[in-house]
Amino acid sequence: MLFHVRMDVRLPTDLDPATRADIVAREKAYSQRLQREGKWPHLWRIVGEYSNFSVFDVESNDELHELLSALPLFPYMDIEVTALARHPSKTTTCEAP
Amino acid sequence: MLFHVRMDVRLPTDLDPATRADIVAREKAYSQRLQREGKWPHLWRIVGEYSNFSVFDVESNDELHELLSALPLFPYMDIEVTALARHPSKTTTCEAP
Amino acid sequence: MLFHVRMDVRLPTDLDPATRADIVAREKAYSQRLQREGKWPHLWRIVGEYSNFSVFDVESNDELHELLSALPLFPYMDIEVTALARHPSKTTTCEAP
Amino acid sequence: MLFHVRMDVRLPTDLDPATRADIVAREKAYSQRLQREGKWPHLWRIVGEYSNFSVFDVESNDELHELLSALPLFPYMDIEVTALARHPSKTTTCEAP
Amino acid sequence: MLFHVRMDVRLPTDLDPATRADIVAREKAYSQRLQREGKWPHLWRIVGEYSNFSVFDVESNDELHELLSALPLFPYMDIEVTALARHPSKTTTCEAP
Amino acid sequence: MLFHVRMDVRLPTDLDPATRADIVAREKAYSQRLQREGKWPHLWRIVGEYSNFSVFDVESNDELHELLSALPLFPYMDIEVTALARHPSKTTTCEAP
Amino acid sequence: MLFHVRMDVRLPTDLDPATRADIVAREKAYSQRLQREGKWPHLWRIVGEYSNFSVFDVESNDELHELLSALPLFPYMDIEVTALARHPSKTTTCEAP
Amino acid sequence: MLFHVRMDVRLPTDLDPATRADIVAREKAYSQRLQREGKWPHLWRIVGEYSNFSVFDVESNDELHELLSALPLFPYMDIEVTALARHPSKTTTCEAP
Amino acid sequence: MLFHVRMDVRLPTDLDPATRADIVAREKAYSQRLQREGKWPHLWRIVGEYSNFSVFDVESNDELHELLSALPLFPYMDIEVTALARHPSKTTTCEAP
Amino acid sequence: MLFHVRMDVRLPTDLDPATRADIVAREKAYSQRLQREGKWPHLWRIVGEYSNFSVFDVESNDELHELLSALPLFPYMDIEVTALARHPSKTTTCEAP
Repeated sequence: MLFHVRMDVRLPTDLDPATRADIVAREKAYSQRLQREGKWPHLWRIVGEYSNFSVFDVESNDELHELLSALPLFPYMDIEVTALARHPSKTTTCEAP
Repeated sequence: MLFHVRMDVRLPTDLDPATRADIVAREKAYSQRLQREGKWPHLWRIVGEYSNFSVFDVESNDELHELLSALPLFPYMDIEVTALARHPSKTTTCEAP
Repeated sequence: MLFHVRMDVRLPTDLDPATRADIVAREKAYSQRLQREGKWPHLWRIVGEYSNFSVFDVESNDELHELLSALPLFPYMDIEVTALARHPSKTTTCEAP
Repeated sequence: MLFHVRMDVRLPTDLDPATRADIVAREKAYSQRLQREGKWPHLWRIVGEYSNFSVFDVESNDELHELLSALPLFPYMDIEVTALARHPSKTTTCEAP
Repeated sequence: MLFHVRMDVRLPTDLDPATRADIVAREKAYSQRLQREGKWPHLWRIVGEYSNFSVFDVESNDELHELLSALPLFPYMDIEVTALARHPSKTTTCEAP
Repeated sequence: MLFHVRMDVRLPTDLDPATRADIVAREKAYSQRLQREGKWPHLWRIVGEYSNFSVFDVESNDELHELLSALPLFPYMDIEVTALARHPSKTTTCEAP
Repeated sequence: MLFHVRMDVRLPTDLDPATRADIVAREKAYSQRLQREGKWPHLWRIVGEYSNFSVFDVESNDELHELLSALPLFPYMDIEVTALARHPSKTTTCEAP
Repeated sequence: MLFHVRMDVRLPTDLDPATRADIVAREKAYSQRLQREGKWPHLWRIVGEYSNFSVFDVESNDELHELLSALPLFPYMDIEVTALARHPSKTTTCEAP
Repeated sequence: MLFHVRMDVRLPTDLDPATRADIVAREKAYSQRLQREGKWPHLWRIVGEYSNFSVFDVESNDELHELLSALPLFPYMDIEVTALARHPSKTTTCEAP
Repeated sequence: MLFHVRMDVRLPTDLDPATRADIVAREKAYSQRLQREGKWPHLWRIVGEYSNFSVFDVESNDELHELLSALPLFPYMDIEVTALARHPSKTTTCEAP
């Protein structure tokens, strides 16, 4: 089941650089693990912003909330979730997720 | 080059049903042609709305505007385009577009 | 799986009264069928508005979109869907949905 | 009498962890007491956000304000209250609140 | 129990003048009946707008929705209801409602 | 001359408790003095928020600004003023202000 | 007593040209009468919009609402009124209103 | 003197096609005349929208309003004007306007 | 050339009182100098807010930006500038600016 | 390929002056290098704001994000990017970018 997610990062500009580097590194590792597991099939940077558009593929709303609230950047982000459905004009060829 | 596009359809409720059916059929055919050509790799319905989130893959801004403004539903839609860049945490495995 | 839905009805004030009465009657019958089937466990009127807050219980995003887009009032409504998850402070006693 | 309530928690990211844990624990206990007393019949987490949708069942506006302003998280939340009325399409079968 | 209500009238500019005059006359009569019954203790015009701020005094949310949805101008208005509680700084002297 | 005022209090959560208590106590005393003088005939708490809807009765815009900017909470509030006029449907019976 | 007023004209594009010309001519005559009477001391066009910023000088809120609601364009305008007070940095030299 | 202008065209979808074609043709001719005169040095289409970002170079605010309000599409557009000043980091090399 | 300016002051509530007094005093002196020079012909306080509506009379956009960015309160203000043109209904009698 | 960019600078008012001066100096140098390279063909100050409208000329979305996220002021700015296309009414004479 697919969900569209927009994440806007609001890291305080006066955050300790080591703390910041640690959070960002853990975020990257966590994100890549979810991508490898197929939970986070799409991830794009929004040009000019510290933000992304993502698509998640999960079993349930509860699973999605668990994944998102475990993001190391979660306390520093505004997140907006939109439920997606199959579009009637979508071709059925080859895309997996 | 990828662009995120949100389309919200605002068809007048008093539109002639035959006109409406014709526009919607042409929209579907046009959309599927662009999908087959690889220009429109992602298309999802937003649950509960006559709207979609899409991703387009084009050579230039001019090409994207040509594709969008030729949509049969173009005069009846609000369209919002967002330029996408590669995300530094994106894994490089298998996804084509 | 639960979803929170807000529906705002925008019936044109010059709609033919018989057409309007027919749509509203079909909406009520459809709504009550979904309630009896357990798909639409909560439905409240927002005081002072031709609007409701609802909770739907469905198997998937696709099922929710099918149910909502089949509403007789669908072409006359603004609908906003929010995915719900279990709250960690929720007591587990007796509520069914 | 039912009221729909949306709560958005804005805990400062630099809040002392012990203070934070204490506030959150007291919030949970308080919330569960109100749930057991039947004052807070519905409580759902909004997916991806530190927010909830709730329904309260109270005798009066004054009682609702007393309950909400006594929340341990009250100074850290944006709260939006919407009065609910019985919906004319609501089936009358089995739901208590 | 008191509720603050803002009403914004959006009468179509091409409405038949006789129809308009009839609706406005019935609105005035209905409003004055509710005022005499003590249900609508305050009613003020917002300067420069076809709008009002009102305070209603009712037994329940259901009663308030019945009163508002029976307004002859209801199909032509945007209405926003806010629940009011006693303010801790309010003096207790002489005001009735 | 009547004015509708909405006040939203934004006290910093890390304000020194004694300072806070002092400001709030002075606000209450000041508010009650204006109420007794007939300048502040209506004051209601907005349910669920640290906010109020008020009606002021003053001689002029200048007097209103003097009263509001002298509020002990003034530096911590968002205030929105709306000029009120007599409503043509208002009954003339008994209300003083 | 001074009030700042913003007026945005929304004349339907399909309005009968003679009707339109008549309304606009009456608006101009009415506006100039109020200017000559000193009630409407400032009137500026907002560049690029069919809108104006104005300042009115009236005895009371009621007088202002009477003047504004009698504008021939009143049914076709969005109007926003803001009460003005003397600014503490204003020099006292020569300006009349 | 430079001004940034955003124009959003809202042509009614049921406008007579000949009328529409005539307006659009006159708009194009008018626009190109102003460009040749150096009054309208920049004009870009916003991708996916019937909108443009423009820069005008005029002698005064009055001249700009005259130019904009004479646009054949003026009654069908939302226009937003922003005054521009020289940026302190702007290099001074070769650009004329 | 006239410009309408809205200024909203956002002084931090924890600013050192002496620093604050100094900034406000310099702001007043600067403002009064510009008023005496005829650059700032109108200045009004918005009732209930630490804000003003102003009208500036300048030779160019560049001059206006220089004047505004030199305001001692500039780093603490939100400023919104709107270009003004002569209104076709403006009477031509006696007002200087 | 052209992109319209709006940048709003939000430097904290309590930033260390030397740090601030250093960031601003590096921003200027970086901006002028991109201008000389032809990447940043237009740059205008928005009158009254610490903001600019810019036009960038880049090979791809990725290049634009790299340029923008390397701005020394990037952590202190809100940036909004809009893709531009050739306008059908644009004359083809002499402008380079």
